[in-house]
Amino acid sequence: MVQIITLITDFGLEDEYVGVMKGVILSRAPDTTIIDLTHNIGPQDLYRAAHVIHGTYHYFPAGTIHLVVVDPGVGGSRKIILVQADHHFFLAPDNGVLSLFFDESVKIREITNHSLFLSPLSHTFHGRDIFAPVGAALASGLSPDKIGPLCELSQVTRLQLPEVRIGKTEIKGQIISIDHFGNLITNIHRSMIPEKNRKNSAGLRLTIGNQELQVVSSYSQMAQGESLALFGSRDYLEIAINKGNAAKELKKSVNEQIIVSFA
Amino acid sequence: MVQIITLITDFGLEDEYVGVMKGVILSRAPDTTIIDLTHNIGPQDLYRAAHVIHGTYHYFPAGTIHLVVVDPGVGGSRKIILVQADHHFFLAPDNGVLSLFFDESVKIREITNHSLFLSPLSHTFHGRDIFAPVGAALASGLSPDKIGPLCELSQVTRLQLPEVRIGKTEIKGQIISIDHFGNLITNIHRSMIPEKNRKNSAGLRLTIGNQELQVVSSYSQMAQGESLALFGSRDYLEIAINKGNAAKELKKSVNEQIIVSFA
Amino acid sequence: MVQIITLITDFGLEDEYVGVMKGVILSRAPDTTIIDLTHNIGPQDLYRAAHVIHGTYHYFPAGTIHLVVVDPGVGGSRKIILVQADHHFFLAPDNGVLSLFFDESVKIREITNHSLFLSPLSHTFHGRDIFAPVGAALASGLSPDKIGPLCELSQVTRLQLPEVRIGKTEIKGQIISIDHFGNLITNIHRSMIPEKNRKNSAGLRLTIGNQELQVVSSYSQMAQGESLALFGSRDYLEIAINKGNAAKELKKSVNEQIIVSFA
Repeated sequence: MVQIITLITDFGLEDEYVGVMKGVILSRAPDTTIIDLTHNIGPQDLYRAAHVIHGTYHYFPAGTIHLVVVDPGVGGSRKIILVQADHHFFLAPDNGVLSLFFDESVKIREITNHSLFLSPLSHTFHGRDIFAPVGAALASGLSPDKIGPLCELSQVTRLQLPEVRIGKTEIKGQIISIDHFGNLITNIHRSMIPEKNRKNSAGLRLTIGNQELQVVSSYSQMAQGESLALFGSRDYLEIAINKGNAAKELKKSVNEQIIVSFA
Repeated sequence: MVQIITLITDFGLEDEYVGVMKGVILSRAPDTTIIDLTHNIGPQDLYRAAHVIHGTYHYFPAGTIHLVVVDPGVGGSRKIILVQADHHFFLAPDNGVLSLFFDESVKIREITNHSLFLSPLSHTFHGRDIFAPVGAALASGLSPDKIGPLCELSQVTRLQLPEVRIGKTEIKGQIISIDHFGNLITNIHRSMIPEKNRKNSAGLRLTIGNQELQVVSSYSQMAQGESLALFGSRDYLEIAINKGNAAKELKKSVNEQIIVSFA
Repeated sequence: MVQIITLITDFGLEDEYVGVMKGVILSRAPDTTIIDLTHNIGPQDLYRAAHVIHGTYHYFPAGTIHLVVVDPGVGGSRKIILVQADHHFFLAPDNGVLSLFFDESVKIREITNHSLFLSPLSHTFHGRDIFAPVGAALASGLSPDKIGPLCELSQVTRLQLPEVRIGKTEIKGQIISIDHFGNLITNIHRSMIPEKNRKNSAGLRLTIGNQELQVVSSYSQMAQGESLALFGSRDYLEIAINKGNAAKELKKSVNEQIIVSFA
């Protein structure tokens, strides 16, 4: 079996930081396959990182180890935790970035086994000094109970997520990120829509500012240049323009309120 | 033997889309080696994608599977095709991006075997839902005839490529892309030049706007800061500045006409 | 044992150049694991490339092959060299980019074995035509003495590095690069500081322009938005702002002088 480690960081790709993490991993677990999910999380954008890891981990095989190194508190007193959920492993700072996994079924451990860390241990690059070697140790088969003791859910940080208000005839949410194509991604998931409106989107309308958009099922259902809404590949509502850039053309951005109404 | 899959997309690297495709591939074909060719194809720049895949595939071993996911028509009625050419496999939307391979020797199949696709199948991310799992199936040894039926060349889309006019004393072409170094890459291939001028470039002149440039064989033949033309690493004529950025300094861009004249 | 090849280039990731190098490597050494260190070295920024390779190679296993393709003189008369240092292999143009390794213990060879190169050999892309196949040959176990003859240290180019002046009460150095987070990285290494001040940074002050900064041991020791200095993950002094971007907010850049004073 091939052991996979995925990486989500805010390190960017200009510097050698990501490559160095891979060097540490491969020095200790040479047969690991390492996959970059993204290194372009905005500084401190824990909310986007939380969505990315929650929306993507299940495309990887069970047993995959995911390192989520978005860590504005590096070098301070925050814990680092190992979360086991749905047969995957997640390592992250205890800053709430794994909140979307937190329910009664997860196992959470505080990473305390210093013998696994690089030495000397820096105050600025725990991706290299802690996440990489601990991830490699798990990849090499180390039992999670050798990483550190179990924590209660009440002992870890939970992220305050932008609110979604679900009413009888409408749902209020907001834009939470913008992708490479300029699509505006909201926090309204398909599962929040009443069942009778989920399959046939004809009865759905999305309002942003003073614009009302039709909810369709593919870009090509609208003419080129037309604005539209659809459930994107992660099943969240997105605002897009067929062969255009919605963020630029509609001049909308993160945090903008949206309303989905259904008949 | 190691099985390689290469990726060309317009997804960028800001989002997790490329990583998710890799997760799907590795879930189904764990021993595959996946290589990124580029994810920075401009939105809808089928012509550049066509040149990149045609100019690079032969640096990979025979049997490599190339996924070319530049797909402005995703979710519409366009086919997805598998092209077998020169002992390589190419998967792409039927939008002409593989046109440079189309001659009588290629085998083309329409990808119709839905049992290979992810389910549910999205309308927006066929890179993940079709290209990745079908590529993985081929990597695992599935016979191409299990992917879908053969098509005739007349049944697939051919790209209208920017014209090159070859005359007796000159060739007219154009700038088709700009690389990271600011080099202006034209659509004039070395093989279009009369044989007697091919080896000794001293008799060649390239005209762009009102500037005439010497065709040399390496950057360092000109002084630092001097403009020059040369046959680049893919054997197309390029305009460059020794240790400078031609696109910025000459203020030229894609579609600009150029003329190569020879004595 | 897994054989690793790392890549440092100034090719960027917009084009297919890096992917093509990987194709050549894998065609000849299929089991190699290839790791990107960075492809965003600025054009001709040999000094930054020199620091990146010297500061990172030791996070990889002994025997790793590092390709450093920052090569403004490509196609000219510069040599290409293989340096063996500290049980690692380094391939680079003879332009000084490996200077930080040059002492009496290294073995240097000029790469002259043309039978290893791609043919035809371009004048513009030796990363593909020379570095990749020679790296692959080493990865496949070719003995270094088959690559080319030994050189003396006096026969290779040494980079003129920005000066550090070490005095009795202060050290003068400069900003040499800026990272993704906007941290300003200096050329003052922890080992240059008098031993009594190394562990307890309380007695250290860093002056840049008319600002004096405290040297601390982690970002979180200062309030959010406060400027600070610390020894970064490579043990060079950096100027940072806790949860901010020092380069933008302090309006400082590469080459700016700094002074570290100690009591």
